Amino acid sequence: MTKTTQNGLYGRDFLLTWEKSHEDLETILSVAEELKRLRDRNISPRCFDSGLAISQFRDNSTRTRFSFASAANLLGMAVQDLDEGKSQIAHGETVRETSAMISFLSDIIGIRDDMFLGAGNAYMREVGAALDEAFADGVLPQRPGIINLQCDIDHPTQSMADLLHLKTVFGSLENLKGKKIAMTWAYSPSYGKPLSVPQGIIGLMTRFGIQVELAFPEGYGLIPEVVELAGKQSQESAGSFHVVNSMEEAFTGADIVYPKSWAPFHVMQQRTELLRKNDHDGLKSLEKECLSNNAHYKNWECTEEHMKLTKEGKALYMHCLPADISGVSCRQGEVAATVFERYRVPLYKQAGFKPYVIAAMMLTNRFEDPASVLGELEGRGAARVF
Amino acid sequence: MTKTTQNGLYGRDFLLTWEKSHEDLETILSVAEELKRLRDRNISPRCFDSGLAISQFRDNSTRTRFSFASAANLLGMAVQDLDEGKSQIAHGETVRETSAMISFLSDIIGIRDDMFLGAGNAYMREVGAALDEAFADGVLPQRPGIINLQCDIDHPTQSMADLLHLKTVFGSLENLKGKKIAMTWAYSPSYGKPLSVPQGIIGLMTRFGIQVELAFPEGYGLIPEVVELAGKQSQESAGSFHVVNSMEEAFTGADIVYPKSWAPFHVMQQRTELLRKNDHDGLKSLEKECLSNNAHYKNWECTEEHMKLTKEGKALYMHCLPADISGVSCRQGEVAATVFERYRVPLYKQAGFKPYVIAAMMLTNRFEDPASVLGELEGRGAARVF
Amino acid sequence: MTKTTQNGLYGRDFLLTWEKSHEDLETILSVAEELKRLRDRNISPRCFDSGLAISQFRDNSTRTRFSFASAANLLGMAVQDLDEGKSQIAHGETVRETSAMISFLSDIIGIRDDMFLGAGNAYMREVGAALDEAFADGVLPQRPGIINLQCDIDHPTQSMADLLHLKTVFGSLENLKGKKIAMTWAYSPSYGKPLSVPQGIIGLMTRFGIQVELAFPEGYGLIPEVVELAGKQSQESAGSFHVVNSMEEAFTGADIVYPKSWAPFHVMQQRTELLRKNDHDGLKSLEKECLSNNAHYKNWECTEEHMKLTKEGKALYMHCLPADISGVSCRQGEVAATVFERYRVPLYKQAGFKPYVIAAMMLTNRFEDPASVLGELEGRGAARVF
Repeated sequence: MTKTTQNGLYGRDFLLTWEKSHEDLETILSVAEELKRLRDRNISPRCFDSGLAISQFRDNSTRTRFSFASAANLLGMAVQDLDEGKSQIAHGETVRETSAMISFLSDIIGIRDDMFLGAGNAYMREVGAALDEAFADGVLPQRPGIINLQCDIDHPTQSMADLLHLKTVFGSLENLKGKKIAMTWAYSPSYGKPLSVPQGIIGLMTRFGIQVELAFPEGYGLIPEVVELAGKQSQESAGSFHVVNSMEEAFTGADIVYPKSWAPFHVMQQRTELLRKNDHDGLKSLEKECLSNNAHYKNWECTEEHMKLTKEGKALYMHCLPADISGVSCRQGEVAATVFERYRVPLYKQAGFKPYVIAAMMLTNRFEDPASVLGELEGRGAARVF
Repeated sequence: MTKTTQNGLYGRDFLLTWEKSHEDLETILSVAEELKRLRDRNISPRCFDSGLAISQFRDNSTRTRFSFASAANLLGMAVQDLDEGKSQIAHGETVRETSAMISFLSDIIGIRDDMFLGAGNAYMREVGAALDEAFADGVLPQRPGIINLQCDIDHPTQSMADLLHLKTVFGSLENLKGKKIAMTWAYSPSYGKPLSVPQGIIGLMTRFGIQVELAFPEGYGLIPEVVELAGKQSQESAGSFHVVNSMEEAFTGADIVYPKSWAPFHVMQQRTELLRKNDHDGLKSLEKECLSNNAHYKNWECTEEHMKLTKEGKALYMHCLPADISGVSCRQGEVAATVFERYRVPLYKQAGFKPYVIAAMMLTNRFEDPASVLGELEGRGAARVF
Repeated sequence: MTKTTQNGLYGRDFLLTWEKSHEDLETILSVAEELKRLRDRNISPRCFDSGLAISQFRDNSTRTRFSFASAANLLGMAVQDLDEGKSQIAHGETVRETSAMISFLSDIIGIRDDMFLGAGNAYMREVGAALDEAFADGVLPQRPGIINLQCDIDHPTQSMADLLHLKTVFGSLENLKGKKIAMTWAYSPSYGKPLSVPQGIIGLMTRFGIQVELAFPEGYGLIPEVVELAGKQSQESAGSFHVVNSMEEAFTGADIVYPKSWAPFHVMQQRTELLRKNDHDGLKSLEKECLSNNAHYKNWECTEEHMKLTKEGKALYMHCLPADISGVSCRQGEVAATVFERYRVPLYKQAGFKPYVIAAMMLTNRFEDPASVLGELEGRGAARVF
């Protein structure tokens, strides 16, 4: 999982943030910021006269789909969607062949594959290996870059947009050092939410000297390797990383809170088995069992009382959206309506960084010297809108 | 319904023609004509280097979908479709959030929502309010413009294309003064056709000094407020507006006839209730009742005999297409095959104005001075095709 | 079927290769090669500032869909998909009207319609006639060109990509003279594969002085008119054409082998009848019967033993992909895994010509003098990627 075959940005897939160097991550953030600055000044950052960005969503998506489409369009690429049909999971020869077939004139491939534990990120690497081979064989004139639009392990476009939001709110990455973020489980009346967001957050934030506290009810753990990695990284960055089983403990003194539901790791493992077997009865009874388990933890809600525990009662509330808002989108859920409403504008701004983060991943994948490209784009000064 | 919060064109949504001034409507027509002229001379009117036009079709569409895509492409925008799944109707928080999430880099949003009486236009305004708020909050760098691609009340891209067709056929808007148009109900073997076309026609044509006659069998009335508005407008424009219950009376001496089926207002109200409740049995029995009611009015067909009643027997026949053509697309329907065939070419030309009318709505929404933009585009003289 | 109303390239549909002159086919190949050369040198061959390429897939497709999208994008057109729903077959008035409605601002229409024998190519011509009429009537400002993306009779984008592959491998079209190609049936555990590929191959390759041998088990014949045409063409080109009922005979001494499953002509006729009647039971029993018939010919597999019969045991193995690979994609199929694997790279390269062949068909349809357009594009030297 942590093989760093994809470190670096130029010509490298963006599959896990922890495969990238600290400098690489900073590059993504500053390219994203610069792209936003250009567009806000009506300067077109179009650097493709033509080009194809392929999207493959093996799970539903609205905001990531639009972010990907926006990013591709901003740089001058058209989006072509690869729709395999929702239940069919391609393996082996099919992946190798299809990967080559769709890539003859493609520049970027974005993939969401988050349903099957152990399979999503692996699928992306299988596609990547197929592309490597096809390029080496002279089948492809170039090797398209892959961007992970959410897998079973990480959700890098989300966590990097989250980091850019934090950088913007706190003024700099430097300012994040020593700040405390509570990445906590939260109650939801639905079930089976992927682990990629909390894993992405602890896998990224532990690298910036942040005090990361991961909290969940007993039995709701994440993939052990990612948790271990977070600990190691926090030591290297002079931050800290703790796992606790209390929302209150995590919230206490926090500068940032990220309460979000997920299904326990061991449940996701069972679920993956059942999905593979198409065992609908098994899935139903697992869902029932889980929901009744979840119900024991309805007090894991980001209430006003919980918020009062945070630093001066004013921690920044974060969520990847959509949130389960008590009394709004469900009877009881992840967050109280008043808390959500108070942070609605920052939450939307948080989401607004995603198109630019994706565009930065695309641009750094295709250009060795992104700074000079951005400089030339600014110098050209073509209007985005006439 | 008639709140004129959206009058003006620049930065204003196009939701109902009667929210726009006479001058605004003339601007749309002349921008559409000029865009067509440019393209016909192979001059590219592309004024977006990149940009996103979002389409949301909550009902099926082929011709409006292609018109919207053509218009966006002509101006340089890519289309991104928002597909929510057909039965799910989003309300409240979801609309507010989704509207912001899809709009970070969007310029235009086109919406078709014509299934639920009282809901379609209201939905567009809900999206608009969400966008206003998101822009005011600094969430969006710009406020995308909304174009109504058909709602429960109006179908402005259709009625404006129809008006442009009339302007072209009769030589000028001035020449339309005193002409008589018969907007009449017609028999169809299908059921539940929306009210937006006849409402759009009476809501628009009564503003140009035209003698508008609305005809339908007793019980097949339109939304009362729109009918009232049509009457008021006809007085202001020195035209006239009459409602009659006879196709013959409406056709007599008409310069233009627009025979088209629709479901009665009160049926659409019931249907909306049943759709909301997912009452399939109720919907079936309503359909059965309606179809048997319709069957009493099979003589409401645009036959050669009816056409002979019109001005010199040569009224211009109009339809938004597709029409129910007797002996062609159904056993008996809205229009006789020989009448339809005689007017097929003008009908197709009528439809051909829609892409340009939509492009004009897009352009006037984004540019304060469309005339100077068009002048610059002509001056630049870039070839659309090399 | 062989009416040559579409000979020539400029302004002519590309529906059957045998409607085109030898010179026309050579033009397609060289334009495709030149487009590839330009793109490989990062010179953008974009010749549309805006424009629409409509795709209509009446059967599933991944590689042709991506090839079409890539080709359109490379030249500067956006793709708009016409999705009629899979089972509905439009005829008559609907085709005439829809063809006009989608074409007001369209440049190219690509159609796949290969399910119904006697219907697919006919449908394309029906669309073409509707476009001719709409253009003549002044409904359309231009007549969009139609490209056959596979029909019941021919698969010209495939066969032309195959020919370009052969030209590349053997060095020139001249070098293909006297070479032997074995277009043979092969066993597959699936059923109902279209006839368009073998027909396309014999209909094209017989024009280049090639020794074409068509082989299939008794009863697995193709459309008789195409077979007859192949014979006639082979005489004119000083090649040869033979039909045999032995894979071994066809392979013996062959320079090129193209083993590929298809359903017998008479079965496709029955299947078409049953599909039209929506006779699901009939289709099932036909499938059962066919599969049990197929099972008699499991030895029609492209094995290593079969390959040894070919010229020095080194014939070029070709396939349109995806192939049924024994032990990989099925238990037993069209080709042995070791044979397929040995030719995987050339097979992928073969497929890689398709986007360029389609782009060449688009370009030659819209430009009278493609060579000068390509020259100007090269002279302009705009970078495809900044």
